[in-house]
Amino acid sequence: MYRSHTCGSLRIEDKGKHVTLAGWVQRTRKMGGMTFVDLRDRYGITQLVFDEQKSGELFEQANKTGREYVIQVEGLVEERYSKNPNMPTGDIEIIVDKYNLLNPSLTPPFTIEENTDGGDDLRMKYRYLDIRRENVRKNLELRHKFCIAVRNFLDSKGFLEIETPILIGSTPEGARDFIVPSRMNPGQFYALPQSPQTLKQLLMVAGIDRYFQIAKCFRDEDLRADRQPEFTQIDCEMSFVTQEDILQIFEEMTKYLFKEVRGVDLGEAPFPRMPWQEAMEKYGSDKPDTRFGMEFKELTTLLKGTGNFSIFDDAAYIGGIVAPGCAGYSRKQLDELTNFVKMPQIGAKGLVWVKVADDGSIKSSVDKYYTPEQIHQVCETAGAANGDLILILCGPDAMRCRKQLCELRLEMGNRLGLRDKNKFSLLWVVDFPMFEWSDEEGRLMAMHHPFTSPRPQDIPLLATQPEKVLADAYDMVCNGIEVGGGSIRIHDAELQAQIFKVLGFTPEKAQAQFGFLMNAFKYGAPPHGGLAYGLDRWVSIFAGLDSIRDCIAFPKNNSGRDVMLDAPSEVAEAQLEELKIALVKDAE
Amino acid sequence: MYRSHTCGSLRIEDKGKHVTLAGWVQRTRKMGGMTFVDLRDRYGITQLVFDEQKSGELFEQANKTGREYVIQVEGLVEERYSKNPNMPTGDIEIIVDKYNLLNPSLTPPFTIEENTDGGDDLRMKYRYLDIRRENVRKNLELRHKFCIAVRNFLDSKGFLEIETPILIGSTPEGARDFIVPSRMNPGQFYALPQSPQTLKQLLMVAGIDRYFQIAKCFRDEDLRADRQPEFTQIDCEMSFVTQEDILQIFEEMTKYLFKEVRGVDLGEAPFPRMPWQEAMEKYGSDKPDTRFGMEFKELTTLLKGTGNFSIFDDAAYIGGIVAPGCAGYSRKQLDELTNFVKMPQIGAKGLVWVKVADDGSIKSSVDKYYTPEQIHQVCETAGAANGDLILILCGPDAMRCRKQLCELRLEMGNRLGLRDKNKFSLLWVVDFPMFEWSDEEGRLMAMHHPFTSPRPQDIPLLATQPEKVLADAYDMVCNGIEVGGGSIRIHDAELQAQIFKVLGFTPEKAQAQFGFLMNAFKYGAPPHGGLAYGLDRWVSIFAGLDSIRDCIAFPKNNSGRDVMLDAPSEVAEAQLEELKIALVKDAE
Repeated sequence: MYRSHTCGSLRIEDKGKHVTLAGWVQRTRKMGGMTFVDLRDRYGITQLVFDEQKSGELFEQANKTGREYVIQVEGLVEERYSKNPNMPTGDIEIIVDKYNLLNPSLTPPFTIEENTDGGDDLRMKYRYLDIRRENVRKNLELRHKFCIAVRNFLDSKGFLEIETPILIGSTPEGARDFIVPSRMNPGQFYALPQSPQTLKQLLMVAGIDRYFQIAKCFRDEDLRADRQPEFTQIDCEMSFVTQEDILQIFEEMTKYLFKEVRGVDLGEAPFPRMPWQEAMEKYGSDKPDTRFGMEFKELTTLLKGTGNFSIFDDAAYIGGIVAPGCAGYSRKQLDELTNFVKMPQIGAKGLVWVKVADDGSIKSSVDKYYTPEQIHQVCETAGAANGDLILILCGPDAMRCRKQLCELRLEMGNRLGLRDKNKFSLLWVVDFPMFEWSDEEGRLMAMHHPFTSPRPQDIPLLATQPEKVLADAYDMVCNGIEVGGGSIRIHDAELQAQIFKVLGFTPEKAQAQFGFLMNAFKYGAPPHGGLAYGLDRWVSIFAGLDSIRDCIAFPKNNSGRDVMLDAPSEVAEAQLEELKIALVKDAE
Repeated sequence: MYRSHTCGSLRIEDKGKHVTLAGWVQRTRKMGGMTFVDLRDRYGITQLVFDEQKSGELFEQANKTGREYVIQVEGLVEERYSKNPNMPTGDIEIIVDKYNLLNPSLTPPFTIEENTDGGDDLRMKYRYLDIRRENVRKNLELRHKFCIAVRNFLDSKGFLEIETPILIGSTPEGARDFIVPSRMNPGQFYALPQSPQTLKQLLMVAGIDRYFQIAKCFRDEDLRADRQPEFTQIDCEMSFVTQEDILQIFEEMTKYLFKEVRGVDLGEAPFPRMPWQEAMEKYGSDKPDTRFGMEFKELTTLLKGTGNFSIFDDAAYIGGIVAPGCAGYSRKQLDELTNFVKMPQIGAKGLVWVKVADDGSIKSSVDKYYTPEQIHQVCETAGAANGDLILILCGPDAMRCRKQLCELRLEMGNRLGLRDKNKFSLLWVVDFPMFEWSDEEGRLMAMHHPFTSPRPQDIPLLATQPEKVLADAYDMVCNGIEVGGGSIRIHDAELQAQIFKVLGFTPEKAQAQFGFLMNAFKYGAPPHGGLAYGLDRWVSIFAGLDSIRDCIAFPKNNSGRDVMLDAPSEVAEAQLEELKIALVKDAE
């Protein structure tokens, strides 16, 4: 036993105890004949006192102790002369009478403090030092607490956590698989699961009834800002349920987690349910941030076709949002917004604005193309009050334009401080389209996956207007982030065959790719459905993080590299020989 | 909602309720104008009654319902005329008034019953049907319950569950790695972790203090009987601890799990601790089955060197066990045992026996080589009583011979019914040798791994007699199975360098292979240690299974194949091209 207490546990009640502590040296301060050392561990910081008068030798040792040295000390708990009310141990200090250097440390490459001087790259390379910082560690603690709560909730509802394999077969539909050469089966490869989707459906066929798993998933994608090649999913599936049953139980879980882990009461009211179509029209997004209003107002019929302003006349869609109290925006501010929407990643051609001054007078950037009555009508339709600013976008592709307007709305939300990280707004987005057209593939593609069930009432449309069929699918959205999503699955072989036909699969191709699942479905598949949450994302929302990276102990960078481990890396030629594979060098 | 109750929930108190059930048809029995259907789900079986008198149509439908059809019924809960006390729902039955066929089923390839007629291969191919069998499902339920208990125990002790990555770097020391080509880093490979060993040590450097993870691990080994290429480990690590601290906390966890999950009270007494040397001498195994005695008695000095019996004279080791009450063994039984020890996988040359009859008279297979006094002394040394049988093996290699004797002891334990699956005997094996000699490599190898600490008192021996150094390592053994093992790790850079030297690593090679960990240790590594349990194995012990396979939802066979998914499999040429690898065909 290296310690009798942790560095976070001693209080004024412990005064007079002789204790042993061990930990890292946060800082040392020499003040005359006294040296103060802040000793840190996961549980807190305790102040140590080395008094030259009491022991010159100990005092010497303390003064040679550098940052991040690991030391063990014994001493007496004393009341502090000047207390620190900001620290749980701030009432006491330890008068050290024994010192043991357990391990020295090189000078760390960045400071181990909340506001560290280390940049992202350095922090990731020395992640084992980064995690010593309280704010990073707290994220990992939160993640742990979150998972314990998820498991205990689902266990209480009769869900069984069942591990599904990591070495599975490749399923070409979907994102790119990571593959693993099999030495025992030369020329063949395992694939790492993109999700346990088909396996959990097999567990429903197996009669497991309620399944979950906090599961590692893998996608070999070109990594955008906030993606990881391996990520964690809370994966759930239930039998003999309808959409309603699933939404209810996971809404209950969500409220439980907010209460239990985040200390937030989401109230009794059920989460709003918004059809996908409405979400697109009001927010230009299937994951609207509903912490604030500023919903889209369609102005197409009002502003198009007057013959005066060709940009609007040529648009397929004209829509605006009302930024409350922003009528006073300066030329510079408006230019900033124009530049924002013109950024390549947003791609709008320009921005039209209408200001309704505090006195009700109206001014707009298109005054010369429209009559005051027309502009007045825009204000009325948009619902702008005195002092408001209307921001209008238009474009030849309604969906694209809505997405641009969505970005503008979020930007205005940021500027107006409406996206408070401590406020949580949850909803279900439902009634997703079953299919979306792929220009690349020249066919309809499954918007979720090919096992998603259409809404029962839409099944007749499959034969006639498949593009109008809506899916029995749902996403849970929190603060503009999709935290989870799922669907009712098809359990009827004929319906499944019909879907594959719409997707352009021959029966042979369907059998080759999904035979193992379709065969299983011939042996009494129950009606079933489920959903999956992105754990990394959900924990980052709880932690108020902008990136999922800081709630992952050892994340990878945008090139899929672990810079701490320096992985991936080259392997020995002998290893490749055993696997019967060879590297292919580029011709150049 | 497809059901108001599950098939396991209705009792006599529910009599008179109108209920909806859904599930699988276990069997149908037509008796005159009544058809009885056993409806099954995960929660139980409920008897349904279709009465021809009440509805000819329903009766017709019931008679067309085959095994494993998925149906939904409504009906009235009635008291049964002839109750079945063996079923929780045996007092009631449902008089069906509505029937809905949810999904038909092909005839399953084997019966969905405890004693199925399906062989192993067929069961694995149709694992989704196999899991419908109560005994298989119960293993998965047990595994779930076990993991929940592990997590709640460790959480209560301040351990944080932290996910470590699955895509890491290859560490050539140890078993073969599975590797994963990186598309974004052509020519480079990730490796799947054989265990999170180095990562958990980095978490200790990171100040996490108490870590655990129920973690997937991967080893590309030629699979022996009861191994899987992917398996699950309960992986734990603690800082500022000695061996004593670790043994205590995990002994407490073990007792908690036995009580909570298995309903077995292991008592207050601490687990015995047996030095490795003693385990080898008494049981010929570092994982002795201590459910029964029959400890080895060394007879070398007694029987060797008389000049009469060259087999013993040439032996380096002669040892025996006493099989109580087996003096009456027939010629045939003794021949069976002789054949057993001569099997190639055991490899003894023969078996010597001594019978002590009930009347005290002694007879042995080596009577002609030894005097009656000598044989009598053998009986005395072995501690054989009247009615006992002594079985003796010898060989030129003491360690090998002990292992043979170990197999014989276990066989006798089986024959005498001393290996009761409902009896549990736990112990710690401690004081393992630090190194073992490898003829293949021509050097000492780490018995655990190169980060294992020697016992403090043995450190001076490192320079002079490294082969005598014992490690600060420990295994937990239950019923002859190693359920877990671990060690105190080295946290001192100099000691680590010394160990690498003993292992024949140049400083450059050590740096190349373990640099990331050794560098981390320069920044204030705390003293730390831990252990890991094999989850699959532990759950199988709790479930009384002979193989770990049946507590894994989707196991692989001995060729590493998932026969249900038909994985691994070939992948498209385009996928290999993207990864810049090619298959190497054998020259033949």
